[in-house]
Amino acid sequence: MTMADFPKRVVFREEGAREGFQSEARIIDTADKVRLIDALSSTGVSLLQVASFVHPKWVPQMADAEAVVAQIKMVDGVRYFGAYLNEQGLDRALATGRLKQYGVLTQYCSESYAKKNVNRSNAEIVATFPRLCQRYRALGLDIYGIIIAAFGSNYDGDVEPASVLAAVDQFVRTAAEQGFTYERIVLADSFGWANPRQIIGVIAAIRERYPDLLIGLHLHDTRGTGMANFYAGLSVGVSYFDTAIGGMGGSPFATAAAGNIPTEDAAFLCAEIGIATGLDIDKLIECVKLAEEIVGHPLPGKLARGGSLTAFRRQRG
Amino acid sequence: MTMADFPKRVVFREEGAREGFQSEARIIDTADKVRLIDALSSTGVSLLQVASFVHPKWVPQMADAEAVVAQIKMVDGVRYFGAYLNEQGLDRALATGRLKQYGVLTQYCSESYAKKNVNRSNAEIVATFPRLCQRYRALGLDIYGIIIAAFGSNYDGDVEPASVLAAVDQFVRTAAEQGFTYERIVLADSFGWANPRQIIGVIAAIRERYPDLLIGLHLHDTRGTGMANFYAGLSVGVSYFDTAIGGMGGSPFATAAAGNIPTEDAAFLCAEIGIATGLDIDKLIECVKLAEEIVGHPLPGKLARGGSLTAFRRQRG
Repeated sequence: MTMADFPKRVVFREEGAREGFQSEARIIDTADKVRLIDALSSTGVSLLQVASFVHPKWVPQMADAEAVVAQIKMVDGVRYFGAYLNEQGLDRALATGRLKQYGVLTQYCSESYAKKNVNRSNAEIVATFPRLCQRYRALGLDIYGIIIAAFGSNYDGDVEPASVLAAVDQFVRTAAEQGFTYERIVLADSFGWANPRQIIGVIAAIRERYPDLLIGLHLHDTRGTGMANFYAGLSVGVSYFDTAIGGMGGSPFATAAAGNIPTEDAAFLCAEIGIATGLDIDKLIECVKLAEEIVGHPLPGKLARGGSLTAFRRQRG
Repeated sequence: MTMADFPKRVVFREEGAREGFQSEARIIDTADKVRLIDALSSTGVSLLQVASFVHPKWVPQMADAEAVVAQIKMVDGVRYFGAYLNEQGLDRALATGRLKQYGVLTQYCSESYAKKNVNRSNAEIVATFPRLCQRYRALGLDIYGIIIAAFGSNYDGDVEPASVLAAVDQFVRTAAEQGFTYERIVLADSFGWANPRQIIGVIAAIRERYPDLLIGLHLHDTRGTGMANFYAGLSVGVSYFDTAIGGMGGSPFATAAAGNIPTEDAAFLCAEIGIATGLDIDKLIECVKLAEEIVGHPLPGKLARGGSLTAFRRQRG
């Protein structure tokens, strides 16, 4: 790879307020959630996931999704949206009248995890795509595809690049049949199995077949490879990443659970190697401190403790 | 870069028992230090730094250096040695009769930090090299050079690649004058300022001038770039790294302090991309758990919580 392969600019989708808070055992006050989201709004972030519209029986932490959305101060230039697992959830998100939702198509590279998560095989999931796409298109939603467990899973083990390519093929077929273009296809390392070589290989294979498809990465730092995987993604031109402020989203004590790569660490790395993110590193650090205050424990991100280099460089003129 | 640039095999120098314990506020029992070192001895590690021979007035944690060395069970194939800052320290290490010491030559890319650390300018330090080298050679020690703050410092800010090259030039000149060959030259990111692009650039520049010089990296994960820097180093053929079990060596709460990259995370990344380390990942994880028990707080390494993939793969045959 050469430096020419790196993107000039990357977009981060901030997951802290959703995937982050959702992983906290203690129910977080609505006002605190709103406080963090409002602080994130001022960091230069462009995509901000603010809540998950799932049944409160399954995820009590997200029972206040509507209240959160009603109370946040929306800022121009930020796209606010919620996560959902089914059409009832999408309907709730749309009913807030404040969110710019995406239409999401999901595939799994782990049949056992699909079964566990949505009680369906991947083929059964794919069979729902035509109806879902018609609904999404009728609503005028941007559509993206996500491939869960694209790099391996604790349920079904290693995933061959051919399986990811088959899922991408399926997404491309669906779009052709339904007459739309994806905003992006996201490969999720849901279980933290990915390594840099695998990421480079899988993305090169997709690129070769579909040079124009925009690929994103959803990375978890479960085994310490998160930031190396992020850098590997950058090195082959990936320009879209899901990140979470402070690396929220995992318990520091639970086995096999870790958050997304920390927004501030990823933004810092980009800044240092000359890739634009639009994010203000020092404001991100303030958000990490706020998030730690809210959740009541340290978060795994490093930069907030190590300190940005901005101040050191400023001191020296 | 191509996969051909990656080393086939890397060597880790384990720093946990020295740089790791040294950062702990609470004095660790000698028996616990010995317990961790003995556990590390069985992981396949080849270079094991076991203590620091510094004045107990400055580093009370290392007051038991001789006792530690006397009590560890030495294993064939592992090189045990201690850190030292001056000849008195070296003499103490040698007097144990159990260590295979290195002769260390140190330069600084931060004049202010040199002043603070050893109360000398870099030029004054370099002036001591001839005498030091003669002593090292008389003792039959392998000699390595280390360049402190090679990628930036909190004291003097950014470091240009030209400054690192000048330090390497000086090392090479000293070796030519004194008639010896370095075991390796280590570039230390002492303050966690390095980024992957910088690492690749600096190493490429050194390689171009000195193709046969063995370069090592001493990386700290102060700002979340540690593992990306490690991967960047691998990508340009670096085959020697200082690491610390669990990422010991920093306080999780102090600003601007973070440990070396975690041995187990780095070994895991290598294993996943097909680079041999000689290390047993599952035994390293056991060492992390022991280290956490001994220091009484979680360590930043991820793999011990995320879990090795060995067991998942074994389940699936």
